[in-house]
Amino acid sequence: MISHKMKDLVAGSSLIRAMFEEGKRLSAIHGIDNVYDYSLGNPNVEPPEVIKEAIREILDEESPTMVHGYMNNSGYEDVREAIANYTNSKHNTNVAKNHIVMTCGAAGGLNIVFKTLLNPGDEVLTFAPFFAEYRNYASNYDASLVVVPPNTETFQPNLQVFTDYISEKTKVVLVNSPNNPTGVIYNEETLRELAKILEDKQKEYGHSIFLVSDEPYREIVYDQAVVPYLLNYYENTIVGYSYSKSLSLPGERIGYLVVHPNIEEVDSVMASLNVANRILGFVNAPSLFQRVVARTLGAEVDVTIYKKNRDVLYDHIRKVGFEALKPEGAFYLFMKTPIEDDVKFCEDAKKFNLLLVPGRAFGCPGYVRLSYCIAYNRIVNSLPAFESLWALYL
Amino acid sequence: MISHKMKDLVAGSSLIRAMFEEGKRLSAIHGIDNVYDYSLGNPNVEPPEVIKEAIREILDEESPTMVHGYMNNSGYEDVREAIANYTNSKHNTNVAKNHIVMTCGAAGGLNIVFKTLLNPGDEVLTFAPFFAEYRNYASNYDASLVVVPPNTETFQPNLQVFTDYISEKTKVVLVNSPNNPTGVIYNEETLRELAKILEDKQKEYGHSIFLVSDEPYREIVYDQAVVPYLLNYYENTIVGYSYSKSLSLPGERIGYLVVHPNIEEVDSVMASLNVANRILGFVNAPSLFQRVVARTLGAEVDVTIYKKNRDVLYDHIRKVGFEALKPEGAFYLFMKTPIEDDVKFCEDAKKFNLLLVPGRAFGCPGYVRLSYCIAYNRIVNSLPAFESLWALYL
Repeated sequence: MISHKMKDLVAGSSLIRAMFEEGKRLSAIHGIDNVYDYSLGNPNVEPPEVIKEAIREILDEESPTMVHGYMNNSGYEDVREAIANYTNSKHNTNVAKNHIVMTCGAAGGLNIVFKTLLNPGDEVLTFAPFFAEYRNYASNYDASLVVVPPNTETFQPNLQVFTDYISEKTKVVLVNSPNNPTGVIYNEETLRELAKILEDKQKEYGHSIFLVSDEPYREIVYDQAVVPYLLNYYENTIVGYSYSKSLSLPGERIGYLVVHPNIEEVDSVMASLNVANRILGFVNAPSLFQRVVARTLGAEVDVTIYKKNRDVLYDHIRKVGFEALKPEGAFYLFMKTPIEDDVKFCEDAKKFNLLLVPGRAFGCPGYVRLSYCIAYNRIVNSLPAFESLWALYL
Repeated sequence: MISHKMKDLVAGSSLIRAMFEEGKRLSAIHGIDNVYDYSLGNPNVEPPEVIKEAIREILDEESPTMVHGYMNNSGYEDVREAIANYTNSKHNTNVAKNHIVMTCGAAGGLNIVFKTLLNPGDEVLTFAPFFAEYRNYASNYDASLVVVPPNTETFQPNLQVFTDYISEKTKVVLVNSPNNPTGVIYNEETLRELAKILEDKQKEYGHSIFLVSDEPYREIVYDQAVVPYLLNYYENTIVGYSYSKSLSLPGERIGYLVVHPNIEEVDSVMASLNVANRILGFVNAPSLFQRVVARTLGAEVDVTIYKKNRDVLYDHIRKVGFEALKPEGAFYLFMKTPIEDDVKFCEDAKKFNLLLVPGRAFGCPGYVRLSYCIAYNRIVNSLPAFESLWALYL
């Protein structure tokens, strides 16, 4: 009775719910402190104190009908101007407020980009492993997601085979760095080569191919790692940003798009993003939080908390014997499973109260994702469970 | 280069922008105080003081990681429970938290309902005059909007011809009361008859037809008018509510859906709404404002401000000679144009610095919409302009 498209998705969602229920079942049996839930990407670090202060200041100083009212569907002009200036000073770009669209998080941003760019039958290319939701975002506009298989040595985009996957139908290439689920940052060399391939393919096919970047983890990086800014490498680029992780505000749905000033037909792209924001029902990014982020530019959560988690978890699982790349950013660790079947491995892990997500959910079987955005003590307490799990396969 | 679907919409949006620019041009010439902009539905009444208080209390009392964090895609359980209880006590319904989905305003709510219910080629029926955005919401899911012509005597849904418009393809009937643009409240007699027709047609076609109600103006009513609650008339019903007008929070994008507990396949409908909220990129309704509305149930803006506006404007235009029904709710007045061409009439009105919206934008030519959610003094100052405008056609 519900739409054909939704039927399969609802069936899929009940699998996730089953996993969630399993977590609750285990907690009921063993106590919530004895279940180690590495399955969710919900930040556990508090938003910086300046967020509260900014909200209080706005309530005291700004007009309520303005703060909570409608504005241009792309967002308040002063907010977009502040973000454009901040972007330019931080990334050496040259964008104006007219290249910024405030969005309901990165998810809302990607949807209005896809609504703007995609015709039915178009292809969106992405690199495994990838965030599973991308498939649904493409499907919303009757486009299909084409997945380039992973380079499991480095988990950089697999450019050796990328070229073969580009076709006449390729309209968008979607990247995500720092990456969910690997924690890898796509490096400058890779991005230069990626841009070069796209330039060549644009000429070959005689139409634009757009590079879209999903960057909710841009600020969550360790050891002074640098995340190259894509606008500096390729003109047909749109960067989707979110404050969900950098300010621990995932529930508030606040983010923005930065569009390259030289993107093809920039005026019609910007006009379409504006209309898409309206007609998909977002109307505009939540207004109070537009004003909050403009007042707190440069604020960040305390990333050392995630780094401490990463270090203890990574060092331990390597010592036990598991293989993994050390995450450079985000709060995920992508661990190779000692048996081929990652779903079976996740089932085995549950015996030790470890909740993990199979790599095939990210287009990369033979791995599991661990979200370490949980309490440090919980991680420490979970360490023996990894030893027991490893021992299963000796 | 942008998608085919968006191309026309962007062209249409530039007409609206042209109107906006015209307003700015007139303001520059005549001074902003001498331009009477009746074109926008942006509430001018301040949110009630309890909103500020609730935000401050939440910042003081609740955990920031919870307040700004992810929750179930349908919303916080305690918020949904509070809204279910409030709905039951106010409307004598029998809904539980599982029948509530928190949404990004009514626009977000309607989009996830359409994503859930509509297959390509399905038809959504609505009654002229209607909010133009409905056509885009249907088109988002490749369904088409079928418009039942108006009953201009009463602006109640035109049930005499409604039956002829229902077909095998009709999946949704969409109503909006208090109505934008007429200010009419669909009365109980009309709704009973509407429900009866739908019951008969469901039997005739052997499949469900869903009644979807868009109710952002439910609380904006005058003279103790009663707005019947649709769950009490028809089982296959979903009500979309928004706090945009009742609390003057349109920029915050906060509202909810109430689904009839006896709707066909209720579990799969609720699961699909939940998934649609996620994959369309809303993810969840903005979290802080979920908590705000749960703390302020029953709060309302000062409707007497809108009533005073309505009274002075309605009394004057009638005295001048224009025809219109007295609005029972919302903050719009739908005025008959003394000439057939409502677009020409709006052009004429601009000569007197009056900005109006032609009725054909609502599927009802020969009328204009006046949004009287503007300052009382501005309305008073505009009154002579209506006399001058009327005199053009004497």
